[in-house]
Amino acid sequence: MAHICEPAVTPVSAPLVASHLQQLRQHSPLTHVITNEVVVGFSANVLLALGATPAMIIDPEEAAEFQAAADALSVNVGTLSRTQQDTILSAVRAANRHNKPWILDPVAVGGLSLRTRLCRELLALGPTAIRGNGSEILALAGQRAEGRGPDSCATSDHALDAARQLARETRCVVAITGEIDYITDGEQILSVPAGSPLLTKITGTGCALSSVAGAFLALPDSPLLTVASACAVMAVAGQHAAATSPGPGSLAVALLDQLHQLSPETLARYL
Amino acid sequence: MAHICEPAVTPVSAPLVASHLQQLRQHSPLTHVITNEVVVGFSANVLLALGATPAMIIDPEEAAEFQAAADALSVNVGTLSRTQQDTILSAVRAANRHNKPWILDPVAVGGLSLRTRLCRELLALGPTAIRGNGSEILALAGQRAEGRGPDSCATSDHALDAARQLARETRCVVAITGEIDYITDGEQILSVPAGSPLLTKITGTGCALSSVAGAFLALPDSPLLTVASACAVMAVAGQHAAATSPGPGSLAVALLDQLHQLSPETLARYL
Amino acid sequence: MAHICEPAVTPVSAPLVASHLQQLRQHSPLTHVITNEVVVGFSANVLLALGATPAMIIDPEEAAEFQAAADALSVNVGTLSRTQQDTILSAVRAANRHNKPWILDPVAVGGLSLRTRLCRELLALGPTAIRGNGSEILALAGQRAEGRGPDSCATSDHALDAARQLARETRCVVAITGEIDYITDGEQILSVPAGSPLLTKITGTGCALSSVAGAFLALPDSPLLTVASACAVMAVAGQHAAATSPGPGSLAVALLDQLHQLSPETLARYL
Repeated sequence: MAHICEPAVTPVSAPLVASHLQQLRQHSPLTHVITNEVVVGFSANVLLALGATPAMIIDPEEAAEFQAAADALSVNVGTLSRTQQDTILSAVRAANRHNKPWILDPVAVGGLSLRTRLCRELLALGPTAIRGNGSEILALAGQRAEGRGPDSCATSDHALDAARQLARETRCVVAITGEIDYITDGEQILSVPAGSPLLTKITGTGCALSSVAGAFLALPDSPLLTVASACAVMAVAGQHAAATSPGPGSLAVALLDQLHQLSPETLARYL
Repeated sequence: MAHICEPAVTPVSAPLVASHLQQLRQHSPLTHVITNEVVVGFSANVLLALGATPAMIIDPEEAAEFQAAADALSVNVGTLSRTQQDTILSAVRAANRHNKPWILDPVAVGGLSLRTRLCRELLALGPTAIRGNGSEILALAGQRAEGRGPDSCATSDHALDAARQLARETRCVVAITGEIDYITDGEQILSVPAGSPLLTKITGTGCALSSVAGAFLALPDSPLLTVASACAVMAVAGQHAAATSPGPGSLAVALLDQLHQLSPETLARYL
Repeated sequence: MAHICEPAVTPVSAPLVASHLQQLRQHSPLTHVITNEVVVGFSANVLLALGATPAMIIDPEEAAEFQAAADALSVNVGTLSRTQQDTILSAVRAANRHNKPWILDPVAVGGLSLRTRLCRELLALGPTAIRGNGSEILALAGQRAEGRGPDSCATSDHALDAARQLARETRCVVAITGEIDYITDGEQILSVPAGSPLLTKITGTGCALSSVAGAFLALPDSPLLTVASACAVMAVAGQHAAATSPGPGSLAVALLDQLHQLSPETLARYL
């Protein structure tokens, strides 16, 4: 019997993250974000603070037209509706026609019918990347999730095997975020140390990360590395912001300030 | 001729509010919030700051499915659409099938056709609780409202009789919020002292309170007492936050911080 | 051959802006805002901070009914959908029947089909005012825009000729906002000095300005002067807030505080 080797986990590289962030600020990728109504404003502010250019367009016809100009697309099903389903499919198909990268955030997939059907359909359309918590990645990979809501989470460690399998089967990059973030293309695994637990008391930090990962996918490097950089930037800004925040209201403000000011030195200190 | 006695008004009990808040933080009720698009992000952040678990699901099919898992439902018609009407009815009927408590926030009922028809239909479906300003409670009770918009208000004192009548007729708890909040089951009346006037300069504090009251309805105590605790928690956090806020921007941030930090001592001091 | 005179540009008058702001706070115009889902909460908070009364109503039937009570209407197509198109047309036609002023914010017009068709239709319905960036005004005036997204901008100087032409043809007031804001009725041109560049790192400051301009249109003065005052109020509050803000998170908070506190002295100092 063959011995199954544990895959090595490599910490993300601070200088590479800093280089990606600098490129992002220089090119300010035009990122089409189709996301849930809870976090749409916050996600736009996160992208602007980082230096990207967000665009939220929700009509199916306009969403398809826009892919010619957009540099990347980020799709999130947190408050999916039938109309939004049309928009997502229209945008994704156009992104594929234009060879634009796109990322899927499968919020609460598994437990709810409409989004579960759509996410399966989207997997077949070939996302460049997927970002979810442990429960969501387990559900997408066809394993049983144990969550009770959108923030439920199987620990990201437990879901790592499912993530590698999903990445290999769909030939995309899968990021599981949780206490530690893992980013894998099915072979290599990168890790990013935790943000702050207080971040779970702000709605949409995970969803906003998926938008940020979309923007980073526009950079000329491998999706494995750029998605890992997106995770690292959010984790470091979150940790740094949490250090001076007495509560979640202050934290959301400080997070935007930190994303705007984030320097190679701060990245090196936390990573 | 019988002499009509004025009903006694009892101030809310600070130790009971503190006990309810502790239970809320311990059990973190999964609260399905169907609310208006203006306040959806803020409401999620308020619930998270307090320690509840919000979920915003907007598709009629998913909204019905979700009631099996949810601990409570909060419905707000502030930006009602025909699609949202379907979602609300679907969710409420499923909540009733699963014996889950639900609360109605009848924003601007009376003046606008679609929401007025829906609110009448919802009254017949048996809400556990209703929260509105004086004009809204008057309109729901079939009396003439005098408002000119969603924030208009007959004083909550004037609407108290209408609230008691509405509570008796619909066998639910009715909260009128304003300078003083009154919570009644048609017999008993509890009162909560004012929050800060500056709170009226932030959009959605009333709407967010209805979401919070939804979460508190999941606790194992009478709706009269848990809804009163929800009002008290928001009023105290609001007063405390306003004391150090130079304007409404700062106040929204401080309110979230205070909800996160709220202690029995602070509750006792303000109540 | 006739010599074409350059039209004179007049700086906005600080005392007049202060007088308009005082009237706004006194009468608190009920302003119906139909805007994009990214900025809807922020726009409501900006109006409340200034002293106006925002109302966001999105059903076509209710939107038409509401014009009888509303003092002004502000329409923004940033996340246009087919449903929202119905609401906008319904609200605008009712506003016209009731002789209520309305303003159009033609976000990203020119590049996307649905909104471009709607904006042309809206121009024919006679807006009281239009506010956009340089690219948007060029596109509306039938000239080629060069933008790559909603925040793209031909410089406002280049678009000034297009704005004057558009104002004359549609008999409305046109505001081009950018490094300097210009407000014209086709003859006179008023200018407002720049806000802070950091304002471009918060989503929706332009969209919120259109809502504010809607509220100012309810005042009993010429649209040229009231729209200019709206631009001035936002520019001064933005500059003042930016002076003490380390990043865009803090800036959004400080902007709301400053709008709430804005005094004639501060207006005179910055204008």
